[in-house]
Amino acid sequence: MKNLMMDTPLTITSLMEHAERNFPTREIVSVSSDNPSFRYTYSEAFTRTRKLANALNSLGISLGDHVGTLAWNDHRHFELYYAISCSGAVCHTVNPRLFPEQLVYIINHAEDQVIFCDPMFVPILENIQDQLTTTKHFIVLTSEEQMPESTLPGLLCYETLLAQESSEFDWPELDEKTPCSMCYTSGTTGRPKGVVYHHRGAYLMTMGTPISWRMTLQPVFMAIVPLFHCNGWNHTWMMPLLGGTVVGCRDISAKAIYDGIADERVSHFGGAPIVLNMIVNAEDGERRNFDHQVEVFTAGAPPAPATLAAIGQLGFNVTQVYGLTETYGHVVESLWNPDWDTLPAEEQSSRKARQGIAMPMMDLTTVVDDTGQQIAMDGVTQGEIVMRGNSVMKGYYKNPEATEKAFSGGFFHSEDIAIQHPDGMMQIADRMKDIIISGGENISSIEIEGAIMAHPAVSLCAVVAKPDDKWGEVPCAFVELLEGKLATEAEVIAFVRGRLAGFKTPKRIIFQELPKTSTGKIQKFELRDIAKTA
Amino acid sequence: MKNLMMDTPLTITSLMEHAERNFPTREIVSVSSDNPSFRYTYSEAFTRTRKLANALNSLGISLGDHVGTLAWNDHRHFELYYAISCSGAVCHTVNPRLFPEQLVYIINHAEDQVIFCDPMFVPILENIQDQLTTTKHFIVLTSEEQMPESTLPGLLCYETLLAQESSEFDWPELDEKTPCSMCYTSGTTGRPKGVVYHHRGAYLMTMGTPISWRMTLQPVFMAIVPLFHCNGWNHTWMMPLLGGTVVGCRDISAKAIYDGIADERVSHFGGAPIVLNMIVNAEDGERRNFDHQVEVFTAGAPPAPATLAAIGQLGFNVTQVYGLTETYGHVVESLWNPDWDTLPAEEQSSRKARQGIAMPMMDLTTVVDDTGQQIAMDGVTQGEIVMRGNSVMKGYYKNPEATEKAFSGGFFHSEDIAIQHPDGMMQIADRMKDIIISGGENISSIEIEGAIMAHPAVSLCAVVAKPDDKWGEVPCAFVELLEGKLATEAEVIAFVRGRLAGFKTPKRIIFQELPKTSTGKIQKFELRDIAKTA
Repeated sequence: MKNLMMDTPLTITSLMEHAERNFPTREIVSVSSDNPSFRYTYSEAFTRTRKLANALNSLGISLGDHVGTLAWNDHRHFELYYAISCSGAVCHTVNPRLFPEQLVYIINHAEDQVIFCDPMFVPILENIQDQLTTTKHFIVLTSEEQMPESTLPGLLCYETLLAQESSEFDWPELDEKTPCSMCYTSGTTGRPKGVVYHHRGAYLMTMGTPISWRMTLQPVFMAIVPLFHCNGWNHTWMMPLLGGTVVGCRDISAKAIYDGIADERVSHFGGAPIVLNMIVNAEDGERRNFDHQVEVFTAGAPPAPATLAAIGQLGFNVTQVYGLTETYGHVVESLWNPDWDTLPAEEQSSRKARQGIAMPMMDLTTVVDDTGQQIAMDGVTQGEIVMRGNSVMKGYYKNPEATEKAFSGGFFHSEDIAIQHPDGMMQIADRMKDIIISGGENISSIEIEGAIMAHPAVSLCAVVAKPDDKWGEVPCAFVELLEGKLATEAEVIAFVRGRLAGFKTPKRIIFQELPKTSTGKIQKFELRDIAKTA
Repeated sequence: MKNLMMDTPLTITSLMEHAERNFPTREIVSVSSDNPSFRYTYSEAFTRTRKLANALNSLGISLGDHVGTLAWNDHRHFELYYAISCSGAVCHTVNPRLFPEQLVYIINHAEDQVIFCDPMFVPILENIQDQLTTTKHFIVLTSEEQMPESTLPGLLCYETLLAQESSEFDWPELDEKTPCSMCYTSGTTGRPKGVVYHHRGAYLMTMGTPISWRMTLQPVFMAIVPLFHCNGWNHTWMMPLLGGTVVGCRDISAKAIYDGIADERVSHFGGAPIVLNMIVNAEDGERRNFDHQVEVFTAGAPPAPATLAAIGQLGFNVTQVYGLTETYGHVVESLWNPDWDTLPAEEQSSRKARQGIAMPMMDLTTVVDDTGQQIAMDGVTQGEIVMRGNSVMKGYYKNPEATEKAFSGGFFHSEDIAIQHPDGMMQIADRMKDIIISGGENISSIEIEGAIMAHPAVSLCAVVAKPDDKWGEVPCAFVELLEGKLATEAEVIAFVRGRLAGFKTPKRIIFQELPKTSTGKIQKFELRDIAKTA
């Protein structure tokens, strides 16, 4: 049978057009570099997006070209997201917190033709401009009056650029497997890798996420996760589909979050566990009253039981999700089983700390052994988390070897080690490289960290392997204490010994600030260096 | 870039596997022919589905073959849905209420190789068996003990068939555009047409519907809409994705619905407006108390304002949706705008009576003029509703002419006439063929019906064109009165004259039972015949 109607591609363009047609009056609330309280409608936003698409044309950007952004979550970044991807180019969201040499590597590797940046990042770009080999234009995301003085070549003002363009633009028909955007991995091991996303994956991620995240039509979403982290977990695409209000969050603080909830009635947001801690530990003057439940999605590390208990009483319901840059963000969720409602609080927290099961858009996420076989779902056996589905990247940009390796055996390999409970729930034991092997036993650094985090004086900790003549490796813990709290090495060791098997008890506790990457991840490789001689 | 991971097809198989892996203990509650209160888990259901797939193989069914069903909504029909489609065959759900000559035409046209039927439909099939040209086997959906005596050739018992088969089955990898199922249109004009659905469309319909229907994970859904009406509006596929509980409804009565809500905590169901009336008009002994809100989706005709008001007070929230057999069911929904919360009740009802805007999985649903151009969104101008998107059928089976015509100009043509309000909401004025043209004015039969339905004695009505020497056509109304209520022709005419323009007032009111098709649709063509001489 001839397919007359079938070839409607799954694209971000269709999400945008759906929103413009059906939710023209819904709003985007933005804190931009030149306006602390900007707001406009989807209709206005997408009119400007068409002007921007014409501007990209004028700048010589065509199908498949890469366009970089160094920007916070404001309405102009939102416009860029749509204009670049829907005109068939690739939106490369660069993490502005990276070190200069990483920025140079990434921008050159991505071959970014044009870079759009917030005014505050102009000095960073000036500093590296003579090392950038492909970038012809730098466009500052501000108005003419606020344009900074700069030596950047091809410098343009975003608002001036838009003012010159027509608001008529015919979006091209794109194949659904056209790349739409890219993010580089944080590169804790080796060179950062360019993860390429495509329209079909973004579309399906967008369709599958609201089900799990209890988002029906017209939520109010606060964009806390930076757009340069896996496309802000895809919420930029999801909100238009849902007719949701987007509330930009530039200053990630307890005050800004509480204000958004109270003033804009924010109903949903995502954030790292540090954001949960911010909310729990907010000063009285930062808190606001509100009368609705806020759904919070957190990823990166299991939230601590004490944090979960405290934030629940404040009116927030927390769901842990799990994913990687390579999977557009979250693809696994810690789905709550109503049978657990009657469990003791501690048991409930331990269930919430499980990474969970596949989200609806994924075909398969499970745990396999070295030979690619499903492990026993006994809550003990360990294996690697692997995934298959449309919400897995297209591949690493200009890196076929790494792509082949990541996809060996027909799965995407997460390099995260997990157990699986009898109900199929996955629980991360450790990153492959963070497992401690002591006397032939595999010890999960995360398990020990969990035990230490339960100590009332501990704010943050990280456990790494310390070389040991007798055992091969032994656990060594690095600890940050809460302000005003004290604890000794012997106390913490005794505390852990009461909770874990003897061979899992750290042999050393070192109190110090933990080294973190520019994206806030703890740099265990530095700690391993310190542990060697500690 | 080489696509290693991209080719994960969007299939019903992936929905089934998602459910079996992630929600094995969720239940299907079924009223089957041989057991009034059967229940089992998804895990048990899909184990039997694999046995059934082996049985289909044993019966000689292979990729692309058509398999018919004549059955109510029970667990065995659910198993058939998955086993037939996921093994690459086409599940043809036949409406058992059709007249014998229609059944013969449809089954032969579809070339059904095997037919699965409820025991109560065996006599119907015996009656037409010698006219069926392609059907080799008849399988009765019951246990060996309950098998009816029958002269049907190739007769088999469903449970006996399953008992012989292995529960191991490797589902084939299917292209996402493989046909999965088919339904015939009701054929009010000419021969019924076989609407072919495909896996991709079913998958995307399944992903897009929960957003609008406020279904997050683990709803409890009552399957009231027969599975032979647009695949039961796709809920059979949606529930596994959501880990929902499916509550079968064989006896569509107020008592069965209230019992499901009270005993199983049914949270969602869909049904024609007649179902809403049933609930509102239930006897005291049929009603049950419940403490949660039930979301109800209705389609086929705008619900009457009085019904909406009454059912809202009983704890039901009603959303009108719109679609056709050709669009897998609903693709447009009467999205509520929170700004309307403060409108007077009558105004609110009139908003709820609008068909609405495109659901998330559709690319475009709008209203166009004769030349295919968007009409003015002024709430007055009329045009035809057209649609484009993945949730539009693949085409009509063995009917390229009708397919080409339905898709002319790159849209699917609904043949429904509508206006569009300034906010984009569509409101059906009439079926193309039901428009009354009087003195050069187009009159919507639906508008007049709405006015008559507001009369307190009227239960149901239908308005058609009556030929008229002076005006060309004039409206003629057929009315069913509520039990125990009386009204005269003059009274009803006077009532309508107070509400509509003079030329829209019916010239004749005829009190009689309205003729309906086997699917419950009013047969206006019969009424037009009566009107000619009335």
